[in-house]
Amino acid sequence: MKWDELKTEPCSVARTLSVIGEKWTILILRECFRKNTRFDGFEAALGLPRAVLSARLKTLQEDGVLEKKINPEHAGRFDYILTKKGRDLRPVLLTMLAWGDQYMMDKPTMIVKHTLCGCDIVPELYCPKCQNKLEAEETRVVEVTQSSPL
Amino acid sequence: MKWDELKTEPCSVARTLSVIGEKWTILILRECFRKNTRFDGFEAALGLPRAVLSARLKTLQEDGVLEKKINPEHAGRFDYILTKKGRDLRPVLLTMLAWGDQYMMDKPTMIVKHTLCGCDIVPELYCPKCQNKLEAEETRVVEVTQSSPL
Repeated sequence: MKWDELKTEPCSVARTLSVIGEKWTILILRECFRKNTRFDGFEAALGLPRAVLSARLKTLQEDGVLEKKINPEHAGRFDYILTKKGRDLRPVLLTMLAWGDQYMMDKPTMIVKHTLCGCDIVPELYCPKCQNKLEAEETRVVEVTQSSPL
Repeated sequence: MKWDELKTEPCSVARTLSVIGEKWTILILRECFRKNTRFDGFEAALGLPRAVLSARLKTLQEDGVLEKKINPEHAGRFDYILTKKGRDLRPVLLTMLAWGDQYMMDKPTMIVKHTLCGCDIVPELYCPKCQNKLEAEETRVVEVTQSSPL
């Protein structure tokens, strides 16, 4: 396996990493979810080198995660907007946030609000079949070609 | 923000990335969840340079995600075992897997089985308060110091 060839690996985790696995990419997506949509805004929030930011944005567009759109209110300005494919990465960031809150923070600095019910929550994975919370040891990932727990 | 200083950022996502954000780390964890526990096994499965693998394993131990244990059946062999903190990263990998299955694969190559109910599932995030599935647009992340949707 080569890092630059993850996109063709027969593993969904590896292929996802081919899109979001480079340094800074997830933090750029975090900014997009925060409605920070401009190159200068990303640079100000993250402080990464402009060449790296430019490369990451190019890849995210090529992968269909972001769209670059002309800002209708400011001629010559562009916004980087999450596509449906990009917005669907939210659960990845939310699970990272929950883990970081639990293990990397003295106290949470961010609160997740569920707008449907209005509550502050810690998002959890559940089973859409039996409706129970997915406990850590209760999932097995079985490859189609071989048995392999994850 | 500097990549090497993510651990002190006031953001749980950034701090999580300080542990799992380097290239290969999540794939090493994937192997651990598959019960692949040995240095040579990681090298064979992933094909990454030994120096990189060694550095990643060292960091994962320092961060309390993996423990290096003597293999009781083979003198001189070591196993890298997920701690509770490490096993709790499973939701991050499962959400990546679900996204990759949806967007990066013609057909899923891995099936997630919920051992509690025996069903093949796509794990989903839900709200532990109102018990509803968390739809993409129904969460807002509010920083304690300022309002900021994620």
